[in-house]
Amino acid sequence: MEDLAYYNGKITRLSEMMVPFNDRSHFFGDGVYDASVARNGIIFKLEDHIERFFNSMALIDIQPDFTKDELRELLQDLCQKLKTGDLFVYFQVSRGTAVRNHSYTQTIKPNLAIYMIPWTGDFSGGHRLKLMTVPDHRFEFCHIKTLNLLPNVLASQSATAQGLDEVVYHREQRVTECAHSNISILTNGVFQTAPLDHWILPGIARKYLLLASQSLGFGISEKPFTIEEMLAADEIIVSSSGALCAPVSEIDGRAVGGRDSERLQQLQTKIYQDFFKETDID
Amino acid sequence: MEDLAYYNGKITRLSEMMVPFNDRSHFFGDGVYDASVARNGIIFKLEDHIERFFNSMALIDIQPDFTKDELRELLQDLCQKLKTGDLFVYFQVSRGTAVRNHSYTQTIKPNLAIYMIPWTGDFSGGHRLKLMTVPDHRFEFCHIKTLNLLPNVLASQSATAQGLDEVVYHREQRVTECAHSNISILTNGVFQTAPLDHWILPGIARKYLLLASQSLGFGISEKPFTIEEMLAADEIIVSSSGALCAPVSEIDGRAVGGRDSERLQQLQTKIYQDFFKETDID
Repeated sequence: MEDLAYYNGKITRLSEMMVPFNDRSHFFGDGVYDASVARNGIIFKLEDHIERFFNSMALIDIQPDFTKDELRELLQDLCQKLKTGDLFVYFQVSRGTAVRNHSYTQTIKPNLAIYMIPWTGDFSGGHRLKLMTVPDHRFEFCHIKTLNLLPNVLASQSATAQGLDEVVYHREQRVTECAHSNISILTNGVFQTAPLDHWILPGIARKYLLLASQSLGFGISEKPFTIEEMLAADEIIVSSSGALCAPVSEIDGRAVGGRDSERLQQLQTKIYQDFFKETDID
Repeated sequence: MEDLAYYNGKITRLSEMMVPFNDRSHFFGDGVYDASVARNGIIFKLEDHIERFFNSMALIDIQPDFTKDELRELLQDLCQKLKTGDLFVYFQVSRGTAVRNHSYTQTIKPNLAIYMIPWTGDFSGGHRLKLMTVPDHRFEFCHIKTLNLLPNVLASQSATAQGLDEVVYHREQRVTECAHSNISILTNGVFQTAPLDHWILPGIARKYLLLASQSLGFGISEKPFTIEEMLAADEIIVSSSGALCAPVSEIDGRAVGGRDSERLQQLQTKIYQDFFKETDID
């Protein structure tokens, strides 16, 4: 198989998987997800992703009927079924299947859904992203990786329509995050990223960028920064599980960053080495 | 059949309908919906619901591949397939089916989903609701009837867990709406409801309550009101397509309303008469 989907024990090709109409993800987006990439059948930072996934479930009162160990084994087993190279690995849980009603019963059984497709990552570090700023009108549950992503879809689409790579959300002057990434800045040797509150997803790449910055001897700061501070930063870095450390060259048509390529490259090297080391089978 | 589901032309019993895993409603809640009730095979205020549904689609850039006339005919035809009495009629559209990606192509084909189930409405007007207040941490797209309803699910569940009927959302001191209803107050003969902005769903029952109040000679006001003003109101009225004009007796454990039962009954009589008249076949 080149790709696969899993739903409550059933496995098919992704395009062939059918799920019940009454799955509550369908009516309410009543579920959470997580995702990573795999190389050589090894899912990168799997423990962090499973930890965050269970935390997301707890935050919306979903009681899984599987353990972390069972999920890890399942994901690893599914990875082995695919002969292809690198993979994008996605897993989500919805609260369950029931006739539509906002409230739910505590006995409802969650639906576990997974898919894996071929993935080509660009970890050469050379490509610089172009962004646009967008007011952050999302809800105050951005710390949970939920299936309520319509604002993110609309914002992403407006970037794509203009040939851009991502958006930068801001609440008044404060920069929060991107539509499907975190954003950080490097200024005077200090790596700065927004603190983890209800406006920010606790990104796993973000966590390792902080640790890498520290071990490289950079200063680190988890304080909010403004649009103005971002535009004046030496480097602007977008991070997600699929783009671990992507620098930015343009925001709203204005040239930005590119003023500390030395530290940027140190950071990228450290982050990519971590990826290649963890996913190596030799 | 006692109930039915429709998905892109296919019709089954509700519990048997399967839909593609890759429907974007599944990953992003990338769609909108509408709902009404039917009596004698006649869907109440269908034109208003179809109008709002098309407006919701336009607001999130979904281009339907069906007309308002075609949707009306389809809904009416499906109603005729069911022998049961009163029905809850739900219809939604998602942006379409595609491998998960925040951005979409303009050529994607929307998925139209419908279900109808038996419904028992209480239009006697006697039952009074018990509510609890909840801070409104939802997004700023509440004027669109989207499938991003996880905050509403969690709020509804917290009410249900306490044996209550609904929540009242507020932003600071301003009352916005309920988790699946609008809320209005009646004070000194004036029917007051929040203005239609991005924090309020343009409720169809809300619209007809305003018109009924006007024709009964009440004052009307579309100005925001505070929690304090709500608690002090003569009557508090919750409205939705399933509960057209439901009075409130308790909020956060405190007795409220019940001070203008005369005008409340006038309003209920007018609203219910409208329902029974429009859905009568004699």
